[in-house]
Amino acid sequence: VKESEFHDWLRRTVPSGEGVFVGIGDDAAVVAGADRIAVASDLMVEGVHFRVQDAPPARIGAKAVNRNFSDMAAMGLKPLWILASAALPERTPEAFVCSLVQGMLDAAQAFDVHLVGGDTSASKAGLVIDVAVIGKVGKEEPLTRAGARPGDRILVTGELGGSSRGRHLDFTPRVKEGVFLNRHHRPSSMIDVSDGLALDLHRILDASSVGARLMGGKIPCSRDAGLCARTSGKSPLEHALSDGEDFELLFTLSPQGAEALLRDGSRFFEVTEIGEVLPDKDERTLDVGGRIRTLGREGYDHTL
Amino acid sequence: VKESEFHDWLRRTVPSGEGVFVGIGDDAAVVAGADRIAVASDLMVEGVHFRVQDAPPARIGAKAVNRNFSDMAAMGLKPLWILASAALPERTPEAFVCSLVQGMLDAAQAFDVHLVGGDTSASKAGLVIDVAVIGKVGKEEPLTRAGARPGDRILVTGELGGSSRGRHLDFTPRVKEGVFLNRHHRPSSMIDVSDGLALDLHRILDASSVGARLMGGKIPCSRDAGLCARTSGKSPLEHALSDGEDFELLFTLSPQGAEALLRDGSRFFEVTEIGEVLPDKDERTLDVGGRIRTLGREGYDHTL
Repeated sequence: VKESEFHDWLRRTVPSGEGVFVGIGDDAAVVAGADRIAVASDLMVEGVHFRVQDAPPARIGAKAVNRNFSDMAAMGLKPLWILASAALPERTPEAFVCSLVQGMLDAAQAFDVHLVGGDTSASKAGLVIDVAVIGKVGKEEPLTRAGARPGDRILVTGELGGSSRGRHLDFTPRVKEGVFLNRHHRPSSMIDVSDGLALDLHRILDASSVGARLMGGKIPCSRDAGLCARTSGKSPLEHALSDGEDFELLFTLSPQGAEALLRDGSRFFEVTEIGEVLPDKDERTLDVGGRIRTLGREGYDHTL
Repeated sequence: VKESEFHDWLRRTVPSGEGVFVGIGDDAAVVAGADRIAVASDLMVEGVHFRVQDAPPARIGAKAVNRNFSDMAAMGLKPLWILASAALPERTPEAFVCSLVQGMLDAAQAFDVHLVGGDTSASKAGLVIDVAVIGKVGKEEPLTRAGARPGDRILVTGELGGSSRGRHLDFTPRVKEGVFLNRHHRPSSMIDVSDGLALDLHRILDASSVGARLMGGKIPCSRDAGLCARTSGKSPLEHALSDGEDFELLFTLSPQGAEALLRDGSRFFEVTEIGEVLPDKDERTLDVGGRIRTLGREGYDHTL
């Protein structure tokens, strides 16, 4: 495919959206902003984040978009626009490219988000996808990783661990949950679990200069974590702590706030209290059946 | 390098900026926006856009940023923030990564632009860089490729051709010129010459549904175009028409507008009138010493 023909196809395929003044096909897109916007981007590399033989292109495209939506959700914000770039290996079949884009568009449409631009290039090696996301900051302040206070409860949406069994490709980013939490419960800090519960909690604790104790028995281990444990030699809890790519929301709330959320919010989505923030930033522990051990920085911290 | 250590270094190295509410280190950056924002992104792939052995990493980083600034300039807008993502081959030396980032930061600083986020990943093959840029739309409407009218003059900044001799790495994106043109002369259409004068002019003509005649003798051929012609078997004019990566601004103005710009604006920067817009969109020609020939879509339209 010639790039120019691909662009023609894109212009016909990508729906135009509200707030998009100049869409695909010019040097830049022009979109309606607010007083403040939030921006993030996320790379996906063949052989590192996915293998082409394991996943149809539409799911790869959807994952690339949903990972970014998860970042917006972690700020308590709704994504509005995306830019998508792809470096494509030589002789990538046209059908592959179309499915990849369609997967992105479907994932975007699920949250009423518009693709407004991006770039394509040949690649001398594998497929590389980079998606940038733009969200609007409304009345609610964005939620950051900093702000957890001693005494706050630690909570998490959904279930954790074993995402490699398929959930890492087919997850629903917690956009609705993140916006709901921001609007109605104002967590003191929030992050999405992309690199593992333990490591992502450390990131909140680092940014907030506090410690924490997790209650091992309360951590919601997914069925996949249990299935992985059968052959891995690790426990379901260890999978839940360190597997990553769960894309659930991890956040902190005052004791009263946690109580209110568990009473009301849990009607709308699954949420579990799993620990407590401690004042000493060096005290980061895991309570497993009364035995207290150090909470390691287990998770996905790859080497560059 | 561990990603976490790299991020620590980044947080220390990247200057914080005005309008940046949440910078590097959270799930997304939060920046001050205006009523409308402009966004674009641009991929650079090792072996396609550059070779590591030909260029020091700081120049590769600078080019990745400046290509995006050129896209903003082509809309007549000033870039404000960037997100930079890089997929790095295994065992990339730490010094290489630091120089790459420093090159990006220096390029950004030259236009008072702030790096607010991005992503890094391992790469199974070459280096891939994707930069997204965000610009603010002020009082002036962004300039698009559509809007050229029959009778308009075609103009270009600087000199064209032979950028492969080094200028493709060390160019100054025409941000000041683009903003100046937008504010004081309101071109009817504008684009940056990234894939070759001929092809990029066709893009303006396609978007505007018009034709054009270029005056071959007026096209400003660079010294590099002449040097390339000595060994390539092509003329300097052919290099100027199709080489690409000039990152000059190509735009259209009414006859009166062109006259005013050539009288006043050319005091600030080099600008040349090179042709005229024609009503028939199928009439796209090049006049070389009185011989009229068809203007091909020569330039860089790569195969995906």
